[in-house]
Amino acid sequence: MTAAPAIAADGVHRLVIRVYYEDTDAAGIVYHANYLKFAERGRTEFLRRLGFEHRKMRQATGLAFAVRHCRADYRKPARLDDELTVETRLAALGGASLEVEQAICRGGETLVRLDLRLACLSADGRAARLPAELRAALAPFSRQASGVSDSHGL
Amino acid sequence: MTAAPAIAADGVHRLVIRVYYEDTDAAGIVYHANYLKFAERGRTEFLRRLGFEHRKMRQATGLAFAVRHCRADYRKPARLDDELTVETRLAALGGASLEVEQAICRGGETLVRLDLRLACLSADGRAARLPAELRAALAPFSRQASGVSDSHGL
Amino acid sequence: MTAAPAIAADGVHRLVIRVYYEDTDAAGIVYHANYLKFAERGRTEFLRRLGFEHRKMRQATGLAFAVRHCRADYRKPARLDDELTVETRLAALGGASLEVEQAICRGGETLVRLDLRLACLSADGRAARLPAELRAALAPFSRQASGVSDSHGL
Amino acid sequence: MTAAPAIAADGVHRLVIRVYYEDTDAAGIVYHANYLKFAERGRTEFLRRLGFEHRKMRQATGLAFAVRHCRADYRKPARLDDELTVETRLAALGGASLEVEQAICRGGETLVRLDLRLACLSADGRAARLPAELRAALAPFSRQASGVSDSHGL
Repeated sequence: MTAAPAIAADGVHRLVIRVYYEDTDAAGIVYHANYLKFAERGRTEFLRRLGFEHRKMRQATGLAFAVRHCRADYRKPARLDDELTVETRLAALGGASLEVEQAICRGGETLVRLDLRLACLSADGRAARLPAELRAALAPFSRQASGVSDSHGL
Repeated sequence: MTAAPAIAADGVHRLVIRVYYEDTDAAGIVYHANYLKFAERGRTEFLRRLGFEHRKMRQATGLAFAVRHCRADYRKPARLDDELTVETRLAALGGASLEVEQAICRGGETLVRLDLRLACLSADGRAARLPAELRAALAPFSRQASGVSDSHGL
Repeated sequence: MTAAPAIAADGVHRLVIRVYYEDTDAAGIVYHANYLKFAERGRTEFLRRLGFEHRKMRQATGLAFAVRHCRADYRKPARLDDELTVETRLAALGGASLEVEQAICRGGETLVRLDLRLACLSADGRAARLPAELRAALAPFSRQASGVSDSHGL
Repeated sequence: MTAAPAIAADGVHRLVIRVYYEDTDAAGIVYHANYLKFAERGRTEFLRRLGFEHRKMRQATGLAFAVRHCRADYRKPARLDDELTVETRLAALGGASLEVEQAICRGGETLVRLDLRLACLSADGRAARLPAELRAALAPFSRQASGVSDSHGL
């Protein structure tokens, strides 16, 4: 885990995580809001892999990302001790925003499918253009043909 | 807080909550996944107001609700110490599912707008019909004309 | 909930909260770390009752509280849908720190007992003296004879 | 991360984790209750390394662990994007309980030091003897001379 996971040739970044008690609820499954945390870990490691860290970016530029829109389809539940893979793919790259497709998978099966739009914000909360270096690093991933798991099913 | 909040004549249930440190993140605002927790509190208190509690329902019938689909629009951030209102309205009542419209508001302003579809599941995770008493209790709220805050803006 | 709860004549502040799915884990009970969140809600409402809010205090003075030490005894578990009372009592008032005794109770029963030491910190993370007005507001509560529930049992 | 981390010759299990936005709060640091989550991840991976998983253990024996007592010393804060090491050492092995020493470290520095007592509980919540195989697997680690980071400082 010391090295950020690689981005595959298909443009999909994969992060392996584990389900702990903290993630579950009294129904015996992962609490629905916590898949959004898993997805954010995946996006963070995707950016780290490209050389960008949230804290450094904010200190250097005053910029941060905020989730503007999120759509989540919950298909099957994850359970305690499951090993999951968070798949992250850049779907679109705008001037001041990103669109990301994500999937939380177990084995070859997609448990939860997420689509998010993220805005780049300045310290005072206004929309801001993505830093040029980040844009340059992301651009090669914004036109990948193949998507995250099971996206054709949407 | 000992009495569950009332459901207004417009069919909208309102729950007042407070933002604590636990809800915020290093960007100084409420972490995006935590609005889903706020929304779930609102749905729970709506049901409690109608006489239904999750734990009792599961013990008596083996049934529980699971979020199947969630769409969240994040418009403005909530901050530490904010007093928020969670608005909950039943949008549709199916045989084995519910559709719910929710809004997280501060003052008269909608910060986050959520639309969810919930499935009623048996103990083994299969779709199950809503208990008849719950259906009867919910039915009067499924055709309300007015919606939660700002829903006309969607 | 719009009015912060009162502080009783015995110097104990009581906040009523509800257990939601978000608080529980796959063992069917409240996840142990989440009682610390409940306790922090109680301390926050105690301070709010005295006229102090975290965000305003930090904006006005640059000061914030940090937990330095925490001891928690878990006696009985809380469960989904439980109504709990968070009891908070100021045990000691230092120049740059506070000691607080707390209990998470259900009915007349103490489920979890917590003792915490909090430090007042400046924006750069150094120990700082408590603001004079906060000290003056807290002083009457620092020598109360009776404690939070069941404290004699420790 | 697919393979559980090893237990070192000194009996200390080390798990590397990363700090995400979900772990932080509006003070810009890791929220104090979340270190207890980190510690539980460390204990879980320690047990997994020995061949024991919570879910399987509960399905096979009806037994689970519950935190009975926790003492946490918060020395320095962790921040967004930090890479942390969770150190876990078995301090004592009782008939129906365990004592564990843990440290959350960054580089060579201990940020938080935790001491916990865990009880083994049956499905109805009563104290139960540890399964014989688990006891046999843990026994070699209960008399290690060297402790987790900085424990001599307590």
